[in-house]
Amino acid sequence: MLVTPVSYTLAVGAAEGPTPMNAFDNALLAAGIGNVNLMKVSSILPPGANYVDAFQIPPGSLVPVAYCSVTSGIPGERIAAAVAVGVSRDSFGVIMEYEGKGTREEAEAEVARMLEVAFEQRQMKLDKVRLRGVDFQVKTLGSVVAAAVLWY
Amino acid sequence: MLVTPVSYTLAVGAAEGPTPMNAFDNALLAAGIGNVNLMKVSSILPPGANYVDAFQIPPGSLVPVAYCSVTSGIPGERIAAAVAVGVSRDSFGVIMEYEGKGTREEAEAEVARMLEVAFEQRQMKLDKVRLRGVDFQVKTLGSVVAAAVLWY
Amino acid sequence: MLVTPVSYTLAVGAAEGPTPMNAFDNALLAAGIGNVNLMKVSSILPPGANYVDAFQIPPGSLVPVAYCSVTSGIPGERIAAAVAVGVSRDSFGVIMEYEGKGTREEAEAEVARMLEVAFEQRQMKLDKVRLRGVDFQVKTLGSVVAAAVLWY
Repeated sequence: MLVTPVSYTLAVGAAEGPTPMNAFDNALLAAGIGNVNLMKVSSILPPGANYVDAFQIPPGSLVPVAYCSVTSGIPGERIAAAVAVGVSRDSFGVIMEYEGKGTREEAEAEVARMLEVAFEQRQMKLDKVRLRGVDFQVKTLGSVVAAAVLWY
Repeated sequence: MLVTPVSYTLAVGAAEGPTPMNAFDNALLAAGIGNVNLMKVSSILPPGANYVDAFQIPPGSLVPVAYCSVTSGIPGERIAAAVAVGVSRDSFGVIMEYEGKGTREEAEAEVARMLEVAFEQRQMKLDKVRLRGVDFQVKTLGSVVAAAVLWY
Repeated sequence: MLVTPVSYTLAVGAAEGPTPMNAFDNALLAAGIGNVNLMKVSSILPPGANYVDAFQIPPGSLVPVAYCSVTSGIPGERIAAAVAVGVSRDSFGVIMEYEGKGTREEAEAEVARMLEVAFEQRQMKLDKVRLRGVDFQVKTLGSVVAAAVLWY
């Protein structure tokens, strides 16, 4: 089997770019995760995984990550993304992501609500939440990203 | 290289939820794959992989999976998803997924047809098909998922 | 951690198919990557990775790949995809993908421009570019794919 990650961090970023993919790439760079190979996963924190403030991951590494992103070419529009990790003591955790139009506060409130639902559904106690959000007012073409990065 | 999976199962689920991501999460839980880190792959059964009825996979594991899903917020709408695995003796297999509006039977017929095309295209004989589908009539916000889970 | 790939190739393909997923599957077969489990990553070439003309990858292997694809059911429409890998001596590289309507030349020009932006943003010197594109005029239902395949 593939080795299960043992630690995690949260990262958010926002940026402009001349093309949608460049805007997304720049948002990843702003989040500090632009130089690795993100492998999207859905969306569980392995039991006992440790939180760290930031990783130093070698460029090009294959990095499991739960993330969301939104890119907009509508000048003046505010876009937002948020990610939340909920932890249940002595068990695994759940990761939720939300992206859309609106403010950081709205995205954070939404993802917090989603996380509560996820724990209710699993009949697990939500002991601790870590949450990060970002918003950005588009000038020409902008992108936001919010990620829970899993690592070793 | 990453270790190639050696076994597989099929899983389907359907559920309501208060947000699209929660509906999807609940459908994954209903399918029995809600507490792992699904890594989407396209879409080949490794040669010699064994079918098992269900896996006991540790929470948070990185799990290669070919899956499809559809989420709808249109009350009364029927949504469906199906996955089919075709096996050719002494060779690898092919996985096909289909999601859309309609019934389980329609989704299963469609994915079976897609699998036949995939084998014709490869000039391989289709010796055996395993297929699972699911449908769901949306109350408020519903999601269905059909998955071929690859494991070790 | 997951083992970082050490080599790469570029692959493009185009094909018709009776369903969108079959058209995509046929395009992958035309590109020579239809019988493996593609794991989508974004989108960095590990430092020192070697270019090879083509891989012989065992069927069903888990293969990290940066790719783009577009499928169209509009007869007569021309669709295109391109992938570019930029290398900076003594450092990692960056992979960019572009898909859309239009010609191969347009897609290649666009992805080349995106790659330049990505290097400017990183304040890295773009020493060498490898680039492949493909286009296809849809008969009934067609698909194109362009991929940077990472391997070991």
